[in-house]
Amino acid sequence: MADLSKGAAWMAGEIRPISEATIGVTDWGLTHSDITYDVVPVWKGGFFRLDDYLDRFLESLAATRLDPGLTRAQIAQALSDMMAASGLQDAYCAMVCARGTPLIPGTRDPRECGNHFYAWCVPYVHVIPFDVAEKGASALIPDSPRRIPETSVNPRAKNYHWGDFTEGLFQAKEGGFDTVILLDHAGNVTEGPGFNVFAVKDQRLITSGHGVLGGITRRTVMEMAAEQGMMPEERPLPLDEFLQADEVFLSSSGGGVTPLVRVGDRVFANGAPGPVARRLRQTYFDWLEAPQFRTEITYG
Amino acid sequence: MADLSKGAAWMAGEIRPISEATIGVTDWGLTHSDITYDVVPVWKGGFFRLDDYLDRFLESLAATRLDPGLTRAQIAQALSDMMAASGLQDAYCAMVCARGTPLIPGTRDPRECGNHFYAWCVPYVHVIPFDVAEKGASALIPDSPRRIPETSVNPRAKNYHWGDFTEGLFQAKEGGFDTVILLDHAGNVTEGPGFNVFAVKDQRLITSGHGVLGGITRRTVMEMAAEQGMMPEERPLPLDEFLQADEVFLSSSGGGVTPLVRVGDRVFANGAPGPVARRLRQTYFDWLEAPQFRTEITYG
Repeated sequence: MADLSKGAAWMAGEIRPISEATIGVTDWGLTHSDITYDVVPVWKGGFFRLDDYLDRFLESLAATRLDPGLTRAQIAQALSDMMAASGLQDAYCAMVCARGTPLIPGTRDPRECGNHFYAWCVPYVHVIPFDVAEKGASALIPDSPRRIPETSVNPRAKNYHWGDFTEGLFQAKEGGFDTVILLDHAGNVTEGPGFNVFAVKDQRLITSGHGVLGGITRRTVMEMAAEQGMMPEERPLPLDEFLQADEVFLSSSGGGVTPLVRVGDRVFANGAPGPVARRLRQTYFDWLEAPQFRTEITYG
Repeated sequence: MADLSKGAAWMAGEIRPISEATIGVTDWGLTHSDITYDVVPVWKGGFFRLDDYLDRFLESLAATRLDPGLTRAQIAQALSDMMAASGLQDAYCAMVCARGTPLIPGTRDPRECGNHFYAWCVPYVHVIPFDVAEKGASALIPDSPRRIPETSVNPRAKNYHWGDFTEGLFQAKEGGFDTVILLDHAGNVTEGPGFNVFAVKDQRLITSGHGVLGGITRRTVMEMAAEQGMMPEERPLPLDEFLQADEVFLSSSGGGVTPLVRVGDRVFANGAPGPVARRLRQTYFDWLEAPQFRTEITYG
């Protein structure tokens, strides 16, 4: 048996080690970043909110006019087979569909390509390392670059257009920050590489409503907050309002809720995670284990 | 010997058939489109303006902070070795550098990845089929999407962020047009998938000066025009001015100068290529064979 402990991939019905999972250098999924994907977290041997992640993947496929050539049930089965074979109990589990290459040589028509689905998994990824997240992380909000506007690329169809994030990450890392958050062209806070952002002010919870991914963890945060008596609001979130909040935090399927204790020069709550972010962080980890959200994996 | 007639690739010093040239599904070059590239045309057994394409590739590498691990001379040698092995006389010859994967497991820091260079070639690509280009092509300028602004992603560092082009191409193809040209958020004409655009009015030649790739073919057009007594201008090109031009055309290393005879509802010069575009098209093909621009390939 091949070693799948570092990760596995499902490609055209075969499961292989992640190190052998590749796509062609002429695939438009690479050369035009003409590709969509989703990532469902696997925690203690079960998928979390699998149906919600599959729903979003199907919406991304429709928005980008990509055809995986598999039904929803077949996609779920592929993910389940791959996870079971990998043996990984806590994992980052990705499903991907790429445009492929032209079926008619020389065409530049995206309707005439052989789309293809694949999946892969690796041990669980934290967008912020766990020990940093526990103490509260730091973020830079640079003046430039600005998040790619949704008038150019639809941010709700999950995509690999991360050039703005990468440039922002370089600035953040060189400034000693853990990550980066980008503004839109109107000066509102949007999102960061792999996460949505929230502000807490007087027990109100505000998250950017425009130009961002519709995160499943973001939705989970809003559901948890509503259960805890807070009124979540989705709307534009101006930078000044964000910096004047009582608390700010990130949400991601890669680590749940991560308090931010510093954004640029601004230190929140004397540099310690605030009570709302701490409570939501714990609730998220509780929900990861709640049966109503889980699809258990049957390992071999 | 492997069959390289459909294309070849140079990867880590080895030359292989294009069908065996792949990158890993976890490479940030794919998952973050964190990659830069360039394409030099090969025509009748020689590179065209190789030094200019290498200059631009090195500028893109610097702008994206990617390290190919090879000197300029080594890159040129890799391209030359690959072309010679392929036997292709007329080719699309790509050089690429990808971010790679983290050298420290779990890091999200783009400074801590193993960047890698590769190259590949396929038979010459026309962005507009040759017979269509001869008669004049058509383009749609949709109201949406707008070109990704340079405040988000630097268009002069040649990149694979084509989500806006892909969405535009779907609209164009469904409307019966050959290709698409995108506006910026101020309503100026920018560029299309794989080409720059020009307008001709009263012997003046105008091309977009902002938010576009600094095309080598674009530069070649401006040099040819200057030799022919026209004054090229680089500046914002409003949609109305573009549509009121005497002639409009595309420039690309994939086919040179392509006259446009229809843009949306507007038909130019009774639907036939205009005299300026026809002359520049012919001059470009002449220059492709001019010794001062060529680096001959020594085939085995």
